[in-house]
Amino acid sequence: MSKVYFPTVNKIAYEGPQSTNPFAFKYYNPEEIVLGKPMKEHLRFSMAYWHTFTYMGNDPFGGASITREWDGGDPMTQAKERVHAAFEFMEKMGMEYFCFHDVDIAPRGATLEESNRNLDEIVDEIEAEMKRTGIKCLWGTTNAFGDAKFVHGASTSCNATVFAYTAAQIKKAMEVTKRLGGENYVFWGGREGYETLLNTDVNRELDHFAAMLKMAADYADKIGFTGQLMIEPKPKEPTRHQYDFDAQSVIGFLRKYGLEKRFVLNIEANHATLAQHSFQHELHMSRINGLLGSIDANMGDPILGWDTDQFPTNLYDATLCMYEVLQQGGIAPGGLNFDAKVRRASTDAEDLFLGHIAGMDTFARGLKVAAKMLEDKVFIKNIDERYASYNTELGATIENGTADFESLEQYALKNGVTKSPSGRQEMLESILNQYILEA
Amino acid sequence: MSKVYFPTVNKIAYEGPQSTNPFAFKYYNPEEIVLGKPMKEHLRFSMAYWHTFTYMGNDPFGGASITREWDGGDPMTQAKERVHAAFEFMEKMGMEYFCFHDVDIAPRGATLEESNRNLDEIVDEIEAEMKRTGIKCLWGTTNAFGDAKFVHGASTSCNATVFAYTAAQIKKAMEVTKRLGGENYVFWGGREGYETLLNTDVNRELDHFAAMLKMAADYADKIGFTGQLMIEPKPKEPTRHQYDFDAQSVIGFLRKYGLEKRFVLNIEANHATLAQHSFQHELHMSRINGLLGSIDANMGDPILGWDTDQFPTNLYDATLCMYEVLQQGGIAPGGLNFDAKVRRASTDAEDLFLGHIAGMDTFARGLKVAAKMLEDKVFIKNIDERYASYNTELGATIENGTADFESLEQYALKNGVTKSPSGRQEMLESILNQYILEA
Amino acid sequence: MSKVYFPTVNKIAYEGPQSTNPFAFKYYNPEEIVLGKPMKEHLRFSMAYWHTFTYMGNDPFGGASITREWDGGDPMTQAKERVHAAFEFMEKMGMEYFCFHDVDIAPRGATLEESNRNLDEIVDEIEAEMKRTGIKCLWGTTNAFGDAKFVHGASTSCNATVFAYTAAQIKKAMEVTKRLGGENYVFWGGREGYETLLNTDVNRELDHFAAMLKMAADYADKIGFTGQLMIEPKPKEPTRHQYDFDAQSVIGFLRKYGLEKRFVLNIEANHATLAQHSFQHELHMSRINGLLGSIDANMGDPILGWDTDQFPTNLYDATLCMYEVLQQGGIAPGGLNFDAKVRRASTDAEDLFLGHIAGMDTFARGLKVAAKMLEDKVFIKNIDERYASYNTELGATIENGTADFESLEQYALKNGVTKSPSGRQEMLESILNQYILEA
Amino acid sequence: MSKVYFPTVNKIAYEGPQSTNPFAFKYYNPEEIVLGKPMKEHLRFSMAYWHTFTYMGNDPFGGASITREWDGGDPMTQAKERVHAAFEFMEKMGMEYFCFHDVDIAPRGATLEESNRNLDEIVDEIEAEMKRTGIKCLWGTTNAFGDAKFVHGASTSCNATVFAYTAAQIKKAMEVTKRLGGENYVFWGGREGYETLLNTDVNRELDHFAAMLKMAADYADKIGFTGQLMIEPKPKEPTRHQYDFDAQSVIGFLRKYGLEKRFVLNIEANHATLAQHSFQHELHMSRINGLLGSIDANMGDPILGWDTDQFPTNLYDATLCMYEVLQQGGIAPGGLNFDAKVRRASTDAEDLFLGHIAGMDTFARGLKVAAKMLEDKVFIKNIDERYASYNTELGATIENGTADFESLEQYALKNGVTKSPSGRQEMLESILNQYILEA
Repeated sequence: MSKVYFPTVNKIAYEGPQSTNPFAFKYYNPEEIVLGKPMKEHLRFSMAYWHTFTYMGNDPFGGASITREWDGGDPMTQAKERVHAAFEFMEKMGMEYFCFHDVDIAPRGATLEESNRNLDEIVDEIEAEMKRTGIKCLWGTTNAFGDAKFVHGASTSCNATVFAYTAAQIKKAMEVTKRLGGENYVFWGGREGYETLLNTDVNRELDHFAAMLKMAADYADKIGFTGQLMIEPKPKEPTRHQYDFDAQSVIGFLRKYGLEKRFVLNIEANHATLAQHSFQHELHMSRINGLLGSIDANMGDPILGWDTDQFPTNLYDATLCMYEVLQQGGIAPGGLNFDAKVRRASTDAEDLFLGHIAGMDTFARGLKVAAKMLEDKVFIKNIDERYASYNTELGATIENGTADFESLEQYALKNGVTKSPSGRQEMLESILNQYILEA
Repeated sequence: MSKVYFPTVNKIAYEGPQSTNPFAFKYYNPEEIVLGKPMKEHLRFSMAYWHTFTYMGNDPFGGASITREWDGGDPMTQAKERVHAAFEFMEKMGMEYFCFHDVDIAPRGATLEESNRNLDEIVDEIEAEMKRTGIKCLWGTTNAFGDAKFVHGASTSCNATVFAYTAAQIKKAMEVTKRLGGENYVFWGGREGYETLLNTDVNRELDHFAAMLKMAADYADKIGFTGQLMIEPKPKEPTRHQYDFDAQSVIGFLRKYGLEKRFVLNIEANHATLAQHSFQHELHMSRINGLLGSIDANMGDPILGWDTDQFPTNLYDATLCMYEVLQQGGIAPGGLNFDAKVRRASTDAEDLFLGHIAGMDTFARGLKVAAKMLEDKVFIKNIDERYASYNTELGATIENGTADFESLEQYALKNGVTKSPSGRQEMLESILNQYILEA
Repeated sequence: MSKVYFPTVNKIAYEGPQSTNPFAFKYYNPEEIVLGKPMKEHLRFSMAYWHTFTYMGNDPFGGASITREWDGGDPMTQAKERVHAAFEFMEKMGMEYFCFHDVDIAPRGATLEESNRNLDEIVDEIEAEMKRTGIKCLWGTTNAFGDAKFVHGASTSCNATVFAYTAAQIKKAMEVTKRLGGENYVFWGGREGYETLLNTDVNRELDHFAAMLKMAADYADKIGFTGQLMIEPKPKEPTRHQYDFDAQSVIGFLRKYGLEKRFVLNIEANHATLAQHSFQHELHMSRINGLLGSIDANMGDPILGWDTDQFPTNLYDATLCMYEVLQQGGIAPGGLNFDAKVRRASTDAEDLFLGHIAGMDTFARGLKVAAKMLEDKVFIKNIDERYASYNTELGATIENGTADFESLEQYALKNGVTKSPSGRQEMLESILNQYILEA
Repeated sequence: MSKVYFPTVNKIAYEGPQSTNPFAFKYYNPEEIVLGKPMKEHLRFSMAYWHTFTYMGNDPFGGASITREWDGGDPMTQAKERVHAAFEFMEKMGMEYFCFHDVDIAPRGATLEESNRNLDEIVDEIEAEMKRTGIKCLWGTTNAFGDAKFVHGASTSCNATVFAYTAAQIKKAMEVTKRLGGENYVFWGGREGYETLLNTDVNRELDHFAAMLKMAADYADKIGFTGQLMIEPKPKEPTRHQYDFDAQSVIGFLRKYGLEKRFVLNIEANHATLAQHSFQHELHMSRINGLLGSIDANMGDPILGWDTDQFPTNLYDATLCMYEVLQQGGIAPGGLNFDAKVRRASTDAEDLFLGHIAGMDTFARGLKVAAKMLEDKVFIKNIDERYASYNTELGATIENGTADFESLEQYALKNGVTKSPSGRQEMLESILNQYILEA
């Protein structure tokens, strides 16, 4: 009989908006049909192994504030306990996906071989649990930023032996992700950037970065890994200035190196905040370039300058996120990964449940609001009307490339400028509130 | 006998670092040879017509705080007075270039025809003054952001008639720039962005923006305007979110629309600050992509969130800017345009001189420091050594594309990782100080 | 028969949450009883004369984008038209208060006498309209920041004659406010700060500032003006660094100069954002010091670094604001002044209505949510429990001042530390969402 | 014969500005007389025990990147090794002061008694080294933020037993500081603030905070500790919102609770940056309130939103800091504590020396520049002239309290406003550059 890690919490059920039971969903009703398919298929929620199972409350000014049932024991035993606790947790939450870095699931060994052996041993446990529960892997990735060897970067280290090591580590993580049926593989370049231009050859580093991605795509093809390959932008932290600054920077980089057919983007809310964009902006820029692959659903704090990775409880952000998702016809094969950790002061195991409930309810509500907004086409109609002048003869010549400066000058001299419609921002924001409250 | 607008100020002379005369250069010695050519040819200083001759101290909370000798009179008379004052000013400053928007030099008319007639009349005056003085035009541009018609954008307005009007206005400004021998033409998209995604079709707007740039390039070719065409990034203000966010965004945009052979970038220091980059970062990213065209030399305030356009007096920024310029072999046909205005409280005409002296002295010092840094190769040597591992057999396979995940894994399993050299940031910053103080 | 300025808009009625009529309230139902009194008495909405009746869409990069029915004509005629339009607007909106600066209502004259005469003439019109409609004055203030003479500050100018002029201007504005029955008088120190410490005697300026406030309080007493005197904090803009940085700075300043019995604070949401605080933080710090006097209800944009003064449509901010207000037993004699302007692109007169509807509905909903939160005491109970240890014998010695280091060391050596309860932030944020959606 | 921890580095000597020896001072010449006393007495440089001897390169995304000669061994042995290494380091650097937290020097024990015993044992070692070398203690402090028990705060924890424990810990640290002859004792409230107002009783927490400070002052008196007691402001991090936000907040807090006679401020450069102030601003506000006690000399990065604690190499900040220090007649009994750590990528022991050399040279230059600025009175004279109108009869009535609104209105009606002098900011910044370069 296996150990129970969360004895005080039962499977979380949907109880509806009037429930005062903290351990129940108020809005997330997984089988409820929205726009023709169950909520859970729209949302594809995923647990982030690192935050939920390895974060102990450490921050730059303090050590662990949290203890867990699986603490203690030798690293491999603890890693196995974590697997069982994680699947118990996901089952109780009703989450069907998880995401992981190699080092989250298995302890780094003294050598690459040992690390790889550790991985293989733990992956056996995970596979068994996946089989038992039906829970799936949304994506895997490599932690090529935490260890001392990555101090100057991984793909962009000044040290070629670190580049080689990184390649080997990604190779293994990609193999493991394939074995676990992972639907995506993510690259987050935590140390791919610079601290000071006084000691950095940016051009050479970017070439190396692109070389690594090219090799990764080639290797995915070689082993038949058919999941999406994704880059996750972040402007800074830990590095002072990261190369994958934001969606537009990454898209430009992909185009420069001819990688835009092979990689898409994994957009994180908190990284958008750090780049002075809204979450919706990053999703939107990715989507209209056909490059929105998956989402890290969390929340930052606009008055703080670092990655707080909070559970997403902002109804506006969740609504506008799901509005982008619905407009591109869904997020699959990506999903909504809770790259979120409980606050350092949320010290109980129960807070892991409460945090995920908070996030899942928020996005469930956001989904329903967005679906209603899309069905009613209230914003879409308004936009179509605003640009109506581009459906005229003049507009057509601009859009079909037959206009030139002379033809347009002729037009302007003859016709001048017509009055533009009001932008109506206040009314639109008011309508958005009404949808959030009444959907 | 023509009117004298700055009777209390004589031609500004170089008096050296010990001078306490506020109306003298302490570091800018135009004919002094640095790295084989006169300072002035390295620096190519340009006066910004708008800040120096039309800024009256207005800000969002207050009206004009400044009066000028050329105030009053009807708009065309005032515009002509400004021309004469501007050339007197540039002569006294020893500045050989100027930059302008169409509406800086001639009043906007009630119609496009009248605006164009006004422009022609004033351009006659300017041409005469250019001939008399030998002063040249660095670049021209269109103000397609100030007038009410641009409330939703110019190229990216939802109103096609505004697009047409913008095209006509750019056409004229480009003709005028050509007539004045302008060496560049700049596009700053002040209103090309969005206020809220609730009412915006970003994709369509970006297509329109690219269409306008394509037409502009075609028209330049048609009329034989051979100057550089430049885009100037800015992340926000006046628009909440501008499409030309920063250098990397613009470079990505140019690549997406196949415009990267025809446009380069005009980098402004204060816009870098607003985008959370250093000035050097924006210059560097442009340079290593072969797209650094010209520079708006000013300074922002890192604790303020808007474009303060201060005269650049930061020795670090000026040094690192000139270091980028020297590394690309000079900034011509671009230059250093002082897109800077005197503080609202610097209310005397004399402050125009004092502000430009401050900026020119700072960049002159920066040039000499950068030249010494480049000659001594102290930073370059350090960088070369850091990346030495890429000159080994392993590094070569990575850089020449013959490595793959299997070969690199083999290497890593066999050799592990060698120790990386220290980044030495503290030492490098200390050396930079020493160069600034002792160059 | 008087002119109608907003012919297309009728009196705005409450139609409830399902209404799709943009010109109706969905949540603001003025006579609805909440916690024992009508909504309108809780909310005390006020129109800001400057934004609604003098803002023409100007911004730092562009001129007017808006035209109004009362444009044109000589300044005094236009000022009178504005009075009639303003009262028509407030009647149609059902707003019972307004706020004004002296220069909003009457044009500044060439001399102080003329300015004062203009004021008297317009105040006659306003008084008549107030009598006719029953609309009241929430507060008056002086614009001592816009004119060129205030370039170095008003009370804190280096120029003593500007100090004298400011005193005279405040004197008149205070008399006018008294005549109009204003319930408060506000001091916002738009230019009271510094641009650079290189030219500023901060200590002397702060002494002057305090001297002005002292004289103002004395004069209020003398003329029997019994309204609240209020200081409105703002960290920056237009000044680089303002003395009234935030609530805590102002409270400290008041205590230093012995003014804390005579002045309270007027807290603006957008100013909180600029100071890196939440709106609730500024309200809370004022409230717990007994110094929360009134509220400027608007909204900033966390990704922009300037005062955007948007209509407040954020449900979280409105809810938490009203939660603070209810906890102090109401905001009277202060109110909720919409220090908010329509976006520059909201170019129709109708947008004035739509903007105010958006703000009023948001705060009405916020009031109801906050009232329910307070009635249920859900957050209050949780807080009481968190601090329960302070109700023990140990806690009592700390709070009543009988503990000292020795007694506490004794306790710690003997008893150590008990486990602290979890902070439960995720659960609390989830509950807040539920209240917002279901209240 | 004792172990040598830094065998490759000899005592750092002054070699002057032309030296290219990285292990030499270029500007810091300790015995050189500036304004009548040796440089070292002006600067009172102090080593921060935590950064230099316990920082291993950890950051939120990575573990240790650095190894040290004293690594390994049991915690007490390692602590003793650190003492010897620290004094070798300070001797070689020629630093005469150090600062410490209790937990930097001795490992935290399982109980308070054990922690205290560990402290006593290590303090014996330190005392011996102090005696041997003549090096002194600038200040001591308590780390009441790192351990799990402080998760909700120390003095402001919701848990009274944590308050008691904190008191006991401060008591011991204060006793140790007294024993070591520490000239100051510092309170930095790392966890004294809130994460969310939804679970916080701010008013009660502030009362507790004040109670703790009161007890600390009483205990200092009791044991005859005559050093300065200091509060160190910081706006955020680790806490979302800290009570000691900035100098003005802290000064207001001290006044509220009647503590302003007993506490002064320890100003840190990087904390100023995080609060959107300049370093000089925080120094200046403290100084003009008579409350500038000591300085944490480091540097933040204006584009990053967290405490980077870099070695201070900015010549502007160092100059303006020393200008404030000289204007208050020196910083003693405070000093300049390098609350700075080498970059995570500065992985060699030698970088500890290079970092401190960078900082000491920068401040040495800053001192000489500031001394020259003060001697020449160039900025002071300009300021005196700007405020000259306050030396007139009108000005005197304002400053001596005899003016009132009526007298000032009389003046304004009769005399109007005289022209204010230009602020001359550009000229002043240019002069500052000249001083930095030529002093």
